[in-house]
Amino acid sequence: MRYELYYWPQIQGRGEYVRLVLEEAGADYADVARRRGMGAMTKMMEARGTPPFAPPFLKAGKLVIGQTANILLYLGPRHGLAPKAEAGRLWLHQLQLTIADLVLEIHDTHHPLGPSMYYEDQRGPAKKRTADFWKERVPKYLEYFERVLESSGGSWVAGRRISYVDLSLFQIVAGLRYAFPKRMKAFERRIPGLVDLHDRVAIRPNIKAYLESERRIPFNEDGIFRHYRELDV
Amino acid sequence: MRYELYYWPQIQGRGEYVRLVLEEAGADYADVARRRGMGAMTKMMEARGTPPFAPPFLKAGKLVIGQTANILLYLGPRHGLAPKAEAGRLWLHQLQLTIADLVLEIHDTHHPLGPSMYYEDQRGPAKKRTADFWKERVPKYLEYFERVLESSGGSWVAGRRISYVDLSLFQIVAGLRYAFPKRMKAFERRIPGLVDLHDRVAIRPNIKAYLESERRIPFNEDGIFRHYRELDV
Repeated sequence: MRYELYYWPQIQGRGEYVRLVLEEAGADYADVARRRGMGAMTKMMEARGTPPFAPPFLKAGKLVIGQTANILLYLGPRHGLAPKAEAGRLWLHQLQLTIADLVLEIHDTHHPLGPSMYYEDQRGPAKKRTADFWKERVPKYLEYFERVLESSGGSWVAGRRISYVDLSLFQIVAGLRYAFPKRMKAFERRIPGLVDLHDRVAIRPNIKAYLESERRIPFNEDGIFRHYRELDV
Repeated sequence: MRYELYYWPQIQGRGEYVRLVLEEAGADYADVARRRGMGAMTKMMEARGTPPFAPPFLKAGKLVIGQTANILLYLGPRHGLAPKAEAGRLWLHQLQLTIADLVLEIHDTHHPLGPSMYYEDQRGPAKKRTADFWKERVPKYLEYFERVLESSGGSWVAGRRISYVDLSLFQIVAGLRYAFPKRMKAFERRIPGLVDLHDRVAIRPNIKAYLESERRIPFNEDGIFRHYRELDV
């Protein structure tokens, strides 16, 4: 089956967590809006019936699945990136939803007054939110994942086999390094396991090939992870 | 099986979406922290292995399930509040995750600079975020759900049978009415279907009995939905 991924063509954003799974799995997929523009995507969102609220969404045969974590819940066990048994699936999904919460908080560092205004119109609040984010939230989230990884009974979050959550954590580390190089450099000694996990994901053959290809959109200041020098002190 | 729900004892918060499901289902459950204090809850969050990141979480036999939407994903089909077939389950979960996004944005109206600071220290930014929320976000979210409800082929979001998403939408309408009575009153003419759904949920025997009981914690200014007069203009 050829999957169709629908996501904004100019950013990694939330679509990247899906792309990483499809790439690691060697799945056959089309990144539709990058190939053919956003017309088809918009049309599906305006449909009656069961339209997605927002991208990303994935067309898999007749199914159209929205919400990033929901897409991974579907793809994971089908591509050996999640256990098939219910307890393991729920646990991984729980972790992925916690990553989704973190991603929203990352977005809020540069858009504390909401997604409609430009960053340039909320610089002051962004500074305050970012300070709180690094003081309180990054330690809480990342040290939680570090602890989960440490006690997983294997080298990956779910144990001895890699899962989609490991791919998402790779993206979190890579993204925080891009957006906040100074802050992240100082923080990394507190999460040696996650840093090592990042490096082990990056050299997996399919991921390595993907990261070196044009299919990987570079980080930029329209995405979730944005580098603004004044926020990285 | 007797479920154990772990959540902050003094607020509705995210735990309320789970409580509504357990109550509608007539399930046997203990609201642990309300009965016995927060000791057991804290201990489970500090455990090694597969600890939840944050409340709410549900103990169901040996399983401990965290993240609100994940808990509903588990409970729904077991209590006749979600279809058992995969396509239907994924669709409802997708809607629930969209509600989770909305809940986070509701929280951000009074805490745009982050959850660590007091509301009193972020009143100015809260005013701006709230204005944007009502101008851009409420119409986008609620008119989406209105449209989904309209084209569901039945009187509930998933068609002819009530689901956990209907219970959550009840809570969204009730919460917005509490937090923003003036703004919501003006907005409700745009979402007649959701208002009617709210009323139909409220009179279901189990829900009605719950809402009238002491088990329903009143809305207050420590929860997600907070009434601050200056934000309701």
